[in-house]
Amino acid sequence: MRILILGADGYLGWPTAMAFRRAGHHVFTVDNYLRRRIAAETDSEALMPNPRLAERSEIFRQVAGGEIAHAEGDCCDFDFICKVVREFAPEAVVHYAEQPSAPYSMINYQEARTTLSNNLTATFNLIWAVLKHARDCHIIKLGTMGEYGTPNIDIEEGWIEITHNGRRDKFLYPRQAGSLYHTTKVLDTDLLWFYVRTYGLRVTDLMQGPVYGLSTDEADLDERLLPNFHYDDIFGTVVNRFLVQAVAGVPLTVYGKGGQTRGYLNIRDTLACIALAAANPPRPGELRILNQFTETFSVNDLAERVRSVGAQLKLAVEVKHIDNPRKELEEHYYNPAHSGLLQLGLQPHFMTDDVLTAMLERVLRYRDRIEVKRILPRVRWN
Amino acid sequence: MRILILGADGYLGWPTAMAFRRAGHHVFTVDNYLRRRIAAETDSEALMPNPRLAERSEIFRQVAGGEIAHAEGDCCDFDFICKVVREFAPEAVVHYAEQPSAPYSMINYQEARTTLSNNLTATFNLIWAVLKHARDCHIIKLGTMGEYGTPNIDIEEGWIEITHNGRRDKFLYPRQAGSLYHTTKVLDTDLLWFYVRTYGLRVTDLMQGPVYGLSTDEADLDERLLPNFHYDDIFGTVVNRFLVQAVAGVPLTVYGKGGQTRGYLNIRDTLACIALAAANPPRPGELRILNQFTETFSVNDLAERVRSVGAQLKLAVEVKHIDNPRKELEEHYYNPAHSGLLQLGLQPHFMTDDVLTAMLERVLRYRDRIEVKRILPRVRWN
Repeated sequence: MRILILGADGYLGWPTAMAFRRAGHHVFTVDNYLRRRIAAETDSEALMPNPRLAERSEIFRQVAGGEIAHAEGDCCDFDFICKVVREFAPEAVVHYAEQPSAPYSMINYQEARTTLSNNLTATFNLIWAVLKHARDCHIIKLGTMGEYGTPNIDIEEGWIEITHNGRRDKFLYPRQAGSLYHTTKVLDTDLLWFYVRTYGLRVTDLMQGPVYGLSTDEADLDERLLPNFHYDDIFGTVVNRFLVQAVAGVPLTVYGKGGQTRGYLNIRDTLACIALAAANPPRPGELRILNQFTETFSVNDLAERVRSVGAQLKLAVEVKHIDNPRKELEEHYYNPAHSGLLQLGLQPHFMTDDVLTAMLERVLRYRDRIEVKRILPRVRWN
Repeated sequence: MRILILGADGYLGWPTAMAFRRAGHHVFTVDNYLRRRIAAETDSEALMPNPRLAERSEIFRQVAGGEIAHAEGDCCDFDFICKVVREFAPEAVVHYAEQPSAPYSMINYQEARTTLSNNLTATFNLIWAVLKHARDCHIIKLGTMGEYGTPNIDIEEGWIEITHNGRRDKFLYPRQAGSLYHTTKVLDTDLLWFYVRTYGLRVTDLMQGPVYGLSTDEADLDERLLPNFHYDDIFGTVVNRFLVQAVAGVPLTVYGKGGQTRGYLNIRDTLACIALAAANPPRPGELRILNQFTETFSVNDLAERVRSVGAQLKLAVEVKHIDNPRKELEEHYYNPAHSGLLQLGLQPHFMTDDVLTAMLERVLRYRDRIEVKRILPRVRWN
């Protein structure tokens, strides 16, 4: 299959590119390095050094064989994205090309504007590039479980049947997100659904939970192929961040009461989900929405898991509740469906002690690179 | 009260400005004349000549007394909108500053991009200008009944309580609009709701139906103060357009079966609704949503009303069903609530024969200015 990956320099983009290439597909990767610029501006560099796409592709070619094509460019530039889609003629596009940090989107006007403009424009331009140059191409869009927020009713997979005053209809599940970043994903879904039903596009919108992990079959071939591993308050997701805190001897910072519950998944499962979506495209005119996570934990659960595994490695891990910099419910109902990807064949990699231990051991090798000042929250929601 | 009106050159903006000024308020008006540029580009000029804000303000001052301040500028320019909000210090902002044409938004990429970018950025910048410079200011935003689409269940006023698997929660009513323009209003609502609940803004989002009419107390003082009256396929709403077709001897063009049902209101009621919203602001942190229309008609109903009133004026009015250029249900359930504005005190002006007759008589005076080629649909949804 011909697979175009937008945002291929990201935590998930590069591992996705390698996995598709190794599975024998033609892969074209694109990034404008926005995340690297933001990381540099906000002192939020990743733990390990990560070469850019040209160099990573060359390393991959040497250790795994096979070419991963790449282009530097901005999906907000319509001529650029049209040229890529027209010339590469993808059968599927994996769209990761969004500003992915909730805290960054909450800093101030300019950061919020960058997030709104970049994320909406990239999605909009991709829709139109596909409409004009690859009408049958399957768009695989990364949404987030955060689109749903934490409603007091069960979360379904994207859609809900509502009976009201004796009549019935089916709707997009109502969304109410906790940051501007997450809200841009809500807007993306609205926009995609409009163009899908109006022009018959094929779209899979994956509502993904926070991802953790460093190890994938391809990343394990060479340390220089590791995903960008962020532990800072801007880009670091909670599990990755807690592991670095455990290694650095910084108490695990639980925001508020710690009852915030979310669906999590291993980076290996992200790759499997994307591959399953690509292998099973929706029909034209279908917006297929899948909830992409394998198990739910509260923040308190995660802190306890990391503390316990850390103790086995003789790390003295403390847990500390701090003022919540975010505006969110700290105790809430949470029961999200996630059967769609299992039905497509997903075999989950759960968050076992072995998985956490292997991650801690890997992070320990990079202990000297940890910058403690990047860990504590530097952005507040008010 | 100090009232800022964005998009004050529009069909509703200018009448709103005059009505507030005549009621004794301080009024500041802003427009970038985007609609005029689009009208010129698409050969969709209004029926009567309409001076720009500087000249209209001067005429108003002469015939009614009282100043209406004005500035030319783009709400997508954050420095501009901040300066206006900071210096004028409004207690309420009426936000009409959006590209208002559904067909325009469906022409091609560039028109869709202009619509998405202009509408979202204007709303986003207004939110931030208020956050930074007038935190307690009441934002009165014009949404559209089109945000809801035509669901098979009753349409509530903005919100819906959902019981699901034995649990209950309240959500924004699910939205599914019929054009990109209408979809930008859905995105606006999502964006406003995020900032309202996160930062405690006060917002009224008015889900307005198609407006008809030419006569307001202030517009009737001088023909040069009339609203921009569009009868073209780009900006003309269906009632205004049918009246012009009746006068021009062009058969009333019903799109498809004509069972498309919407909630309509007289322009006088728009002014009353905005005044009622301004006089009764929501509390901080409340997104109040009101459905703004007074009666529902199908397109077939409207065509028959105009035909019948035309006959009384000896106009031979034909009705002609044509291929629907839009993608929409032509027969559907439609039962939208609209009690909120009535409870605030709205006294509706219904679409009586007298109202239609007066409009026809006014249009007859401008018969020679009608350009028939502007009437038939020039944009298709596919």
